[in-house]
Amino acid sequence: MVFGGIEAGGTKIVCAVGNRSGEITSKKVIPTSAPEETLMEVKAFFSHFDLEALGVGSFGPVDLNKESDTYGTILNTPKTDWKNFDLLGRLKGDYQIPVYIDTDVNAACLGEYRYGAGKCVNSCLYITVGTGIGAGLVQDGYTFQGKIHPEMGHVMVPRHSDDSFAGCCPYHGNCLEGMASGPAIEKRHGNKGYLLSHDAAVWEIEAHYLAHAIVNYTLILSPERIILGGGVMKQEILYSLVREKVSKLLNSYVDVGNLNDFISAPALDDEQGVKGAITLAADR
Amino acid sequence: MVFGGIEAGGTKIVCAVGNRSGEITSKKVIPTSAPEETLMEVKAFFSHFDLEALGVGSFGPVDLNKESDTYGTILNTPKTDWKNFDLLGRLKGDYQIPVYIDTDVNAACLGEYRYGAGKCVNSCLYITVGTGIGAGLVQDGYTFQGKIHPEMGHVMVPRHSDDSFAGCCPYHGNCLEGMASGPAIEKRHGNKGYLLSHDAAVWEIEAHYLAHAIVNYTLILSPERIILGGGVMKQEILYSLVREKVSKLLNSYVDVGNLNDFISAPALDDEQGVKGAITLAADR
Repeated sequence: MVFGGIEAGGTKIVCAVGNRSGEITSKKVIPTSAPEETLMEVKAFFSHFDLEALGVGSFGPVDLNKESDTYGTILNTPKTDWKNFDLLGRLKGDYQIPVYIDTDVNAACLGEYRYGAGKCVNSCLYITVGTGIGAGLVQDGYTFQGKIHPEMGHVMVPRHSDDSFAGCCPYHGNCLEGMASGPAIEKRHGNKGYLLSHDAAVWEIEAHYLAHAIVNYTLILSPERIILGGGVMKQEILYSLVREKVSKLLNSYVDVGNLNDFISAPALDDEQGVKGAITLAADR
Repeated sequence: MVFGGIEAGGTKIVCAVGNRSGEITSKKVIPTSAPEETLMEVKAFFSHFDLEALGVGSFGPVDLNKESDTYGTILNTPKTDWKNFDLLGRLKGDYQIPVYIDTDVNAACLGEYRYGAGKCVNSCLYITVGTGIGAGLVQDGYTFQGKIHPEMGHVMVPRHSDDSFAGCCPYHGNCLEGMASGPAIEKRHGNKGYLLSHDAAVWEIEAHYLAHAIVNYTLILSPERIILGGGVMKQEILYSLVREKVSKLLNSYVDVGNLNDFISAPALDDEQGVKGAITLAADR
């Protein structure tokens, strides 16, 4: 049996076909343009396969409330072409097979949970730190949703004492995404993160915000593992800086075990999203 | 069929007997002393009833990991008599009926969810602001646990610009509990909260911390309703101050509906804990 997975991002759509063992047999990356055009290309790709079911990890906000009239619809996104687009309804119409939808970060978390850095634990949080910041939680094999769905990248964090940057989140200014995303680093320091590798102050500040958010996620969600990925985390020194600060802030109040295991890097090399999307379909 | 409920707190243990409709037919409050002495009194109370099952909402930290060897044991508490006490094992031995355990705040949340301010929604968060601060989440009828369990009262919150109080949490200093619990108000302002009713600056600062925490809970857990209780919330002006600040901080980024409904007062008049404990038993 083969299953389809779609990782629907703001700039690209990754489509793949795979099995229950996490093997991908075919994959295609399609640039995200207007819904009609994009989904025609998606359909052309999947038309070569006899799929059992399809899973989608979508950019958002997306309505995940199964009791809602707009379940599976993209909500108030800055990508105006996709605003109020009934993604789930359209895919169900296109394929006439079961289609399952979740957030992009929940799908990525599910991929890591099943096949990657979370495969030895019962619950894990996957955080991506890049152009934006988002996080998804899987517990006992299920992704955690809520009334709409979590938007964990926008949590409020205490300011670093040496940091006067106002923050760049258009909604909240100095929330986590406003202070610690890739664009926040670039706006604060005048250069992209990868060009600032040797500037310790940059990463001290970055680790401060990530650590405070991770402490809050830990105290609120009590996950067994935290997987920290995304473009900004290519700066590998961040892992040790974040672990050190998390340890200091938690001050042994909760036992998270070995910090090197508790806060770890992803294992699926940017395929966690689409593998998780396939898992959404294969698991049901 | 009658069910037993125990709300086990650090200063008192509330025992009650009730039914599936949320009616309490008998209740007794026992001061919390050493485990043997306290549990003998608990047993004496319940010996008059033919219980189907028993539910316990316990102070913590308590091990809620069903796969753990110490499942149902009180962990590292400052109440040294109770440290490493196998509460679940002892109660199972005492009563020979099914016994279900959860945190005190999860039980209280379940009580409000089933019979109180959360009975019209599918998920709610119950926050208690008193000597300490804690919160529990119920979603689709189930309490949310984690690897150990959440400790939401200790999240980190941005400092209020007019506040120089160091914080009084013995573990984290200036976490939410360190900045906004009853003892924090008393230490910061030199007087108990209820004697400071007319000092607007006190409640402005208090609302600042509560609102920041509530915004983070909302973004991380996406609950349908937040029920805000505990002794400090007797200062009723806090509700409108907190709602106003939450609205400003969220800045319409997520749609929480009418804020007067979203952030509401408890409805069970200090019986949410024991009613929730009975529900833990009656629901299984």
